[in-house]
Amino acid sequence: MKHVLLARFKEDITPEKTEELIKGYAGLVSLVEPMKGFQWGTDVSIENLHQGFTHIFVSTFESTEGIAEYVAHPAHVEFANKFLPWLEKVLVVDYKPNIVEQ
Amino acid sequence: MKHVLLARFKEDITPEKTEELIKGYAGLVSLVEPMKGFQWGTDVSIENLHQGFTHIFVSTFESTEGIAEYVAHPAHVEFANKFLPWLEKVLVVDYKPNIVEQ
Repeated sequence: MKHVLLARFKEDITPEKTEELIKGYAGLVSLVEPMKGFQWGTDVSIENLHQGFTHIFVSTFESTEGIAEYVAHPAHVEFANKFLPWLEKVLVVDYKPNIVEQ
Repeated sequence: MKHVLLARFKEDITPEKTEELIKGYAGLVSLVEPMKGFQWGTDVSIENLHQGFTHIFVSTFESTEGIAEYVAHPAHVEFANKFLPWLEKVLVVDYKPNIVEQ
């Protein structure tokens, strides 16, 4: 299962605070057992369909139950309370990847 | 590089048409050389932050130049002309995955 969070930080955030929050997000991998992986990146698309989102965070879980456990986990709740106030926009989708056979 | 497209299909689309479009999207892997992989899924998130998006499509490319080549490729343009009219909402971000060392 993939847990995808798109974000736009508020304009008054500093690069140092942004880096601190991203490290905090990544640090959840070692605090929340069902969270098995974490990647992030900044949008570089040329199609102008980003709807204002600038950052993407992709976490990997073995199951939907694992995502529910993550959402309720005290370490996630503590991080979310630090992270969400810095976001101007946020969007979350969870999905099980399907690969289409040709 | 990851090319991420979030979509919500129009309400009057049929399941058959949805399946046809997803297969068409996946088929670009064999038509557009720089497109190296394709996955898709439907949103199952429980946090109610999906902003109305129901589907996610994730393509893999070796470089940003590869994504630009894909966007301009006749097979992609032909597919986009079939696909986009069925979308009520669309969002695209491209990113280079970073993995944070603990």
